[in-house]
Amino acid sequence: MDFAAEMKRQVARVERGIDLHVPRADTRPARLHTAMRYSLEAGGKRLRPVLVLAAAEMFGVTEDAALPAAVAVECVHTYSLIHDDLPCMDNDDLRRGRPTAHKQFDEATALLAGDALLTHAFSLLAISYDPKMANRLVATLAAAAGSQCLVGGQMEDLLAERKANATAEDLDFIHLNKTAAIISASFAMGGIVGEATDEDLMFLHEAGRQLGLAFQIIDDVLDATSDSATLGKTAGKDAKAGKTTYVKVHGLAASRRVAEENSQRARATLGKLGRDSRFIEALIDSMAARTK
Amino acid sequence: MDFAAEMKRQVARVERGIDLHVPRADTRPARLHTAMRYSLEAGGKRLRPVLVLAAAEMFGVTEDAALPAAVAVECVHTYSLIHDDLPCMDNDDLRRGRPTAHKQFDEATALLAGDALLTHAFSLLAISYDPKMANRLVATLAAAAGSQCLVGGQMEDLLAERKANATAEDLDFIHLNKTAAIISASFAMGGIVGEATDEDLMFLHEAGRQLGLAFQIIDDVLDATSDSATLGKTAGKDAKAGKTTYVKVHGLAASRRVAEENSQRARATLGKLGRDSRFIEALIDSMAARTK
Repeated sequence: MDFAAEMKRQVARVERGIDLHVPRADTRPARLHTAMRYSLEAGGKRLRPVLVLAAAEMFGVTEDAALPAAVAVECVHTYSLIHDDLPCMDNDDLRRGRPTAHKQFDEATALLAGDALLTHAFSLLAISYDPKMANRLVATLAAAAGSQCLVGGQMEDLLAERKANATAEDLDFIHLNKTAAIISASFAMGGIVGEATDEDLMFLHEAGRQLGLAFQIIDDVLDATSDSATLGKTAGKDAKAGKTTYVKVHGLAASRRVAEENSQRARATLGKLGRDSRFIEALIDSMAARTK
Repeated sequence: MDFAAEMKRQVARVERGIDLHVPRADTRPARLHTAMRYSLEAGGKRLRPVLVLAAAEMFGVTEDAALPAAVAVECVHTYSLIHDDLPCMDNDDLRRGRPTAHKQFDEATALLAGDALLTHAFSLLAISYDPKMANRLVATLAAAAGSQCLVGGQMEDLLAERKANATAEDLDFIHLNKTAAIISASFAMGGIVGEATDEDLMFLHEAGRQLGLAFQIIDDVLDATSDSATLGKTAGKDAKAGKTTYVKVHGLAASRRVAEENSQRARATLGKLGRDSRFIEALIDSMAARTK
């Protein structure tokens, strides 16, 4: 398998899906839809939606049935970035090498574009699948995005920034909820579209959690060791903000080791499905080796 | 029927529903859940969730089956108020006679509490009903809350504030989308829980749109004629912001007349259902006569 070519194909599918399944920029109010598409179309790794498609493919879904689910996950991820970048949160000017939404438009427009993307994710799931499948997808995504996962992780992340003594346990809570929950949901949503068994869905959730942890730890490592031009976002931000990161708590060497362990665990968990997971395994390896 | 007693009973049900169906304040992260409950428990008219319960009762649902749907609608309404009050939007310090969420906590917490309430609404629907009903409820609420309704109306409202020459047509777009869509969805969601026919759902949507227009016009009238102490929120804000309101475009007398016409239309539309709509009709009359 040519991983780079396969990845390119999947990313192209995701981007076609975004174009298909998100209102056109000139739909009234045009400013809002333009802002939604500005952030959605800014590129990025497309990791989460590609995981949805790849997991669905493992269960035999090769056509575009998983595309609305993939786009819904990317809408939720993009909303969380837009809100995270706002002045009252991380106050970031740069994202994926371009001005953040509130810099390109204004704060109110960015806030509303995020709100609209989150809402659109659920709308898209509800109208794209038969009721039973749609409802499982909505329940899975809403749980992963809610106050006890994604938003809860962001809240704890902010609180950890404010206190000097955030613990390793706080950090695990943040990583599991802020990052791993949506990655885990991405795997599971692909499985739901592929009508995976409950046992297989459990393995998909588990593999997603392991990959998500690895992914976030590598993010912390890159923030500490890379530069803004390479990252396409502000580097060294965590240390500057006095933020408790995996690197700060455990050191660089241990962080790299734990990331590697979790990548390996994710591969092993996927192996339990007994299906062709070569693409996802190569994706995990490429994530572990990434420089941005 | 003793309207005041019946209204009190329905509001009490809603408040019990909120307590039942929203995570406890001490759930981690406690700050986030405390902020969600702070805004949800601030009181207010509970118009939208009461409409859900009342519409469901018209279709024979007297037990608590409609309660999660009612709470979901109130979560969406409350999220929209929290985000609307933020400094980058209306920058309001007072809501329902208490400090707004970002004043009581901080901007980041208010932003995240709104995000979490929106997400919780869909989660709650997905886990509380059989898949077919849940999916219709999610689709209805997501459409009404999305970029072409609630959020779209908020965007156009902001844009109208910025331009001197917002038209009567702009204003209709704003009212229909910012206010009427969720009120319309509230009626419809009650009907969905009550397994109303498609034709009856159409009448419920229509009545909700008419009531929603009346409600928003009365809001504009009250903003122009009442005081902050009576309203429990900042009065005269629209004129001060140079905002295009129904009163500014059409004058006070015409605004009152159009509100009254829409209230009457809503009553007439409900009449087409051929069910006992006395409570909702009395509710419409009380909304038309309200002073806050």
